[in-house]
Amino acid sequence: MPRRLRWGMVGGGRGAFIGHVHRMAARLDDGYELVAGALSSDPERAHLSAADCHIAPERSYASFAEMAAQESERKDGIEVVSIVTPNHSHAAIARAFLEKGIDVICDKPLATSLAEAVALRDLAAARGRLLGVTYNYTGYPLVREARELVAQGEIGRVRLVQVEFLLGWLSVPLEAEGIKQTWRIDPAVAGPSGVVADIGTHALHLANFVTGLTLDELSADIQTFVPGRKLEDNAFVGLRYQGGARGSLWASMVAAGEPVGLRLRVYGETGSLAWDQSLPDSLHLRPLDGAPRTIYRGHAASPAAKHGTRLVAGLPEGFVEGFANLYRDYAELIHARAEGRAPHAPALLAPLAEAGVEGLAFVEAVLQSAAKNGAWVKPAAAC
Amino acid sequence: MPRRLRWGMVGGGRGAFIGHVHRMAARLDDGYELVAGALSSDPERAHLSAADCHIAPERSYASFAEMAAQESERKDGIEVVSIVTPNHSHAAIARAFLEKGIDVICDKPLATSLAEAVALRDLAAARGRLLGVTYNYTGYPLVREARELVAQGEIGRVRLVQVEFLLGWLSVPLEAEGIKQTWRIDPAVAGPSGVVADIGTHALHLANFVTGLTLDELSADIQTFVPGRKLEDNAFVGLRYQGGARGSLWASMVAAGEPVGLRLRVYGETGSLAWDQSLPDSLHLRPLDGAPRTIYRGHAASPAAKHGTRLVAGLPEGFVEGFANLYRDYAELIHARAEGRAPHAPALLAPLAEAGVEGLAFVEAVLQSAAKNGAWVKPAAAC
Amino acid sequence: MPRRLRWGMVGGGRGAFIGHVHRMAARLDDGYELVAGALSSDPERAHLSAADCHIAPERSYASFAEMAAQESERKDGIEVVSIVTPNHSHAAIARAFLEKGIDVICDKPLATSLAEAVALRDLAAARGRLLGVTYNYTGYPLVREARELVAQGEIGRVRLVQVEFLLGWLSVPLEAEGIKQTWRIDPAVAGPSGVVADIGTHALHLANFVTGLTLDELSADIQTFVPGRKLEDNAFVGLRYQGGARGSLWASMVAAGEPVGLRLRVYGETGSLAWDQSLPDSLHLRPLDGAPRTIYRGHAASPAAKHGTRLVAGLPEGFVEGFANLYRDYAELIHARAEGRAPHAPALLAPLAEAGVEGLAFVEAVLQSAAKNGAWVKPAAAC
Amino acid sequence: MPRRLRWGMVGGGRGAFIGHVHRMAARLDDGYELVAGALSSDPERAHLSAADCHIAPERSYASFAEMAAQESERKDGIEVVSIVTPNHSHAAIARAFLEKGIDVICDKPLATSLAEAVALRDLAAARGRLLGVTYNYTGYPLVREARELVAQGEIGRVRLVQVEFLLGWLSVPLEAEGIKQTWRIDPAVAGPSGVVADIGTHALHLANFVTGLTLDELSADIQTFVPGRKLEDNAFVGLRYQGGARGSLWASMVAAGEPVGLRLRVYGETGSLAWDQSLPDSLHLRPLDGAPRTIYRGHAASPAAKHGTRLVAGLPEGFVEGFANLYRDYAELIHARAEGRAPHAPALLAPLAEAGVEGLAFVEAVLQSAAKNGAWVKPAAAC
Repeated sequence: MPRRLRWGMVGGGRGAFIGHVHRMAARLDDGYELVAGALSSDPERAHLSAADCHIAPERSYASFAEMAAQESERKDGIEVVSIVTPNHSHAAIARAFLEKGIDVICDKPLATSLAEAVALRDLAAARGRLLGVTYNYTGYPLVREARELVAQGEIGRVRLVQVEFLLGWLSVPLEAEGIKQTWRIDPAVAGPSGVVADIGTHALHLANFVTGLTLDELSADIQTFVPGRKLEDNAFVGLRYQGGARGSLWASMVAAGEPVGLRLRVYGETGSLAWDQSLPDSLHLRPLDGAPRTIYRGHAASPAAKHGTRLVAGLPEGFVEGFANLYRDYAELIHARAEGRAPHAPALLAPLAEAGVEGLAFVEAVLQSAAKNGAWVKPAAAC
Repeated sequence: MPRRLRWGMVGGGRGAFIGHVHRMAARLDDGYELVAGALSSDPERAHLSAADCHIAPERSYASFAEMAAQESERKDGIEVVSIVTPNHSHAAIARAFLEKGIDVICDKPLATSLAEAVALRDLAAARGRLLGVTYNYTGYPLVREARELVAQGEIGRVRLVQVEFLLGWLSVPLEAEGIKQTWRIDPAVAGPSGVVADIGTHALHLANFVTGLTLDELSADIQTFVPGRKLEDNAFVGLRYQGGARGSLWASMVAAGEPVGLRLRVYGETGSLAWDQSLPDSLHLRPLDGAPRTIYRGHAASPAAKHGTRLVAGLPEGFVEGFANLYRDYAELIHARAEGRAPHAPALLAPLAEAGVEGLAFVEAVLQSAAKNGAWVKPAAAC
Repeated sequence: MPRRLRWGMVGGGRGAFIGHVHRMAARLDDGYELVAGALSSDPERAHLSAADCHIAPERSYASFAEMAAQESERKDGIEVVSIVTPNHSHAAIARAFLEKGIDVICDKPLATSLAEAVALRDLAAARGRLLGVTYNYTGYPLVREARELVAQGEIGRVRLVQVEFLLGWLSVPLEAEGIKQTWRIDPAVAGPSGVVADIGTHALHLANFVTGLTLDELSADIQTFVPGRKLEDNAFVGLRYQGGARGSLWASMVAAGEPVGLRLRVYGETGSLAWDQSLPDSLHLRPLDGAPRTIYRGHAASPAAKHGTRLVAGLPEGFVEGFANLYRDYAELIHARAEGRAPHAPALLAPLAEAGVEGLAFVEAVLQSAAKNGAWVKPAAAC
Repeated sequence: MPRRLRWGMVGGGRGAFIGHVHRMAARLDDGYELVAGALSSDPERAHLSAADCHIAPERSYASFAEMAAQESERKDGIEVVSIVTPNHSHAAIARAFLEKGIDVICDKPLATSLAEAVALRDLAAARGRLLGVTYNYTGYPLVREARELVAQGEIGRVRLVQVEFLLGWLSVPLEAEGIKQTWRIDPAVAGPSGVVADIGTHALHLANFVTGLTLDELSADIQTFVPGRKLEDNAFVGLRYQGGARGSLWASMVAAGEPVGLRLRVYGETGSLAWDQSLPDSLHLRPLDGAPRTIYRGHAASPAAKHGTRLVAGLPEGFVEGFANLYRDYAELIHARAEGRAPHAPALLAPLAEAGVEGLAFVEAVLQSAAKNGAWVKPAAAC
């Protein structure tokens, strides 16, 4: 167990959902100590939120810019910062900290345009800093097991991929009621894409992570079902992968009755696998003609899955634990760099800037295809 | 309980799968008596098969043409015939019996071209004969319940449909081994389409039956994954329905590890429903924010579902029972016509020639769209 | 395919549930032709019911005694009769037909006392007639597969058995409303036991069939929860098997919310298996530390399971199909005897008089133990 | 958010399972700061383990006695200690800290005899200290929801309870291999009972918590299946509750193939509920004749369930989160006492010394009944 990293957070004040998740995830394995924050753009809220988090008042900042400036000056300043603000601010905040040499863990999407994402990736590379993007679902141990099984040929060469991320709560025009979390369908905050950027990119990252495939071209049909909504709330996307595999991605915010329906199926020449985020401790393997098997998390065989597992099979782990695996990976990458050694292998699975770039390339290609009534489009960067 | 109909069969000799199913389905409710057949084009096999079925030797025919001719001459000749031969022969056989005034129950697809299907539909109408097409999955009671629930507004106006029919056993080139049941991917027998005609049409019929929607246009991406295969073995089809609903249909014969994966999900403005053919006694209803409910077959409320149910909830019914519901419906339609009365309402749900026409229109539109790299195509007839 | 057996039925008139099931089961494989019946003690009902079943009026009898007498005189008289009346009449009816040399298929329980059951078994043996008792749940293919897997040592020596049969619909005093099917808790008709005789014996037969074990002693705690009810409606029974295995059997008619909860789990030294009647097409195998596997009906490997299977995996079979397997077995036993040959092996799994005797021995031991506040009691006959 | 409690731990050094769980649970909500420990009886291991936990070297103690003595002298000494050692040492350690006025959170069972447990309960009461016993499964939000639903009459008056806790990993004589975690079946460490004390008490606590019932008498049949094992590894226990409800409890360590099978079913006069620890985010409600409903964690309605929920429905929570709810409750009880106010209502659900006493009373009654071949025995204290 190495020392705790000195850690800061931008966004994530009282009432924020994802900031709370990041904090629980970081605490779970005790690898981070939250010592600074710009938790809210509202000064009073920022102050109260910092106290909730046991952040010393003098390290509760009014703005990310001030925080980046001051923390980088302190001897005991933060080593790494997490960005959990709405999408449109990610890029500027990430840039500010990277430029000060501070490692960054950014909630997805990395930016609201591909150009911004590419620039950030290049900046992180130039400064030699970590730029993590929390496509957290690939932190689940059995997702990592699935990737390993595919790589080992357990289901043969991959032919077909079906992935979907379905939410129901935005089936009604909640944005008209001024509910805060509807910013994800407000173009002023979310950027030019709604459901595709918000959760479609999670689905794509999951599919690509498990299959190891690279998308060649896509065809998209997007819709806005809720009257008055400004961004697309449903998308069907056809996928053609390099090497011949084909697939289908579905992202929806109007799938009434779905809590969080993130599901992946991959079919190869000799079998298939299926995984459902809401029941993450089971991975289903179906050989061509034989009896389907269920692999429980605690029985997974791959080093990456074992490394990401804290409890025996039968004692459930969940979303926070999967998220915490990314935090543990990022910490390992930071410590390894500091110590001049190679990181432990599982940490190399954590999504970094490249995953962020791929996400934005996907979003832009989807919007282009949809604008051309579903013409097949090649993403501008690998995804 | 009316008298048993005098019934004949073309195809379905020893070793045939679907012919056996039709016979079990017809027997279950005791509404048919099998008295004549042309069960195989191989005379010896035809003879033995007829004996298996307790058909008198003199009513075991060497050809469907002879059977149609002779049975239509007998005073106690068959009233209705079932056609369970490979696809390419359906149309000629159906025509032969319809022209003799004998009612026809034809396995799907009705024909191998839309033109043939339309001609058969028109012939049946002109002769005033029944022309049933056994899209049998809509015989399941809970599928009928689902249709009724949608019609009653249980999930609100339909926005999204996802339907899939996935098989795994043809993931390998079984046709190269001369296995008989691979005729479905032999263009000489199956017609110009493989997986779309074979099972894609089942999926479409199921989706349209439950939602009550009519397809406006579709976009298809089809593939042939197995080397040497002559027809497509996978298809992703985007669906745009009249009135604005959108959907996705997936049919595959190379979904390794899937026994019979026919699944439907329908999302409306206020909830959704889901049904899986392999667990047909449960229908899942998910309201927008509330607790999902499972409706068991024996608890269904609609007259059509109740009518199609033989056992209490908890005692499972299956494929044969669902299939038998079509046979019961067809018998009712025949008896009602003979008696000059309106049929009982549930019998009106049985798929007739129009469903067969829709299936062929769908197949042809899919092939056209695929040939144009997924351009949106309007089917030539309602589907 | 042998010729159809000439078959009669006692009980099972209009509105009767289990008689209808027997008829569907017998028809499914076309091995029986229903030609005579005493379908109801109400003459008008008997007449109408016979017409429903296409029984000639002259072979619709006013009583089972008349039927046994007249049919045994006819050259084309019935060869086998099914008894589907309430419990208290089983023994006398079975005796009447056995004495005329007619094979008998009797719904369970075989009688209402052990002494009667033993006498019937001995009578059938003395006359060389079949006396089947329809413990139908062991007709499911995967139950037979489970038995074979246990016998082959797939889960090692059996240590623990848990079996339950739970119904909810009698959670309220329906008998006070004069509902016909409540005869099963009316001691004048059902005999001295309610839930134990009615469904507890099914559970016991299932457990013993799969494990191949013989009960050594039992301890019972029985209750009557519904006010005014005259027979027990819940029973917890501890099981000690010969050879050291232990178990627990639970039968209840007051398990509110359970449609038909018949479930079996067997744990051996190296693994376990589980089966649920409401999802009969899946058998779950769980090795000691490995990935659980699901065997689908169509993939079962044992000859008995394969023989009892009509459809490929993924096309569901249900209660009628499992029941039909007994009918097919009984027909095979009758034909084999007539032909002087050994029956096909799977037919030897069908429950006969001995199973009926075991059931009554179990019922009597449960009542004795309960009367002694749960003292361990050895059944008077093997069970 | 109140300040973090100064917290110590006895046991839980490197490689220990449950100590790690306690630490993750305590960290999740950031209510505790681990500042002292006697983490192992092996000094080197204790030292290394303390460093892992960021405990200052001078507060890593060689024994619990030294720790209690020194910490109680420090101004910044621990306020609360968690005991995560094997069973036989719980009582002495708890006593040592309670006598110094330090609050105690003790893993279950509280002691190895009822007398010890009673004495500890009385000591805690006399000193006015918290004595928590981590029957952690009642910390799951939907278990608390279930309790509330039963209390509100959702399923009517309770009639039947079935609860089981099944483990498979000790199906083989691992203790012969010297594996550390087998202490639970070593009488020198575990006390006089194996599976009943280890997990049977969890099952009982769960059943009693949800139903609100008090056990009147029990009848036990216990076995030791694994050759050479010194304590029972399987137990079937009949339950008779005050007021007339009956039940069945099954605890096993030889249920091969079961990872952690803790499952509860409760049947009332008008419905039933079911919950499975391995899928803790779903609670199943089955009305008498209607459609079963599934309540997801994020949709629970009771204040206690809502309070124990961190994530929306569809994002899974697990074992650590449920455990953390107890830690949060204990912290609230401690803060409320310090502040002289009533604790928030949900905290009153956390298991305290009384639950520990009930557990030991249950264990002793089970052993007594088993010694009398299953005679019904009344526990010496309420349970």
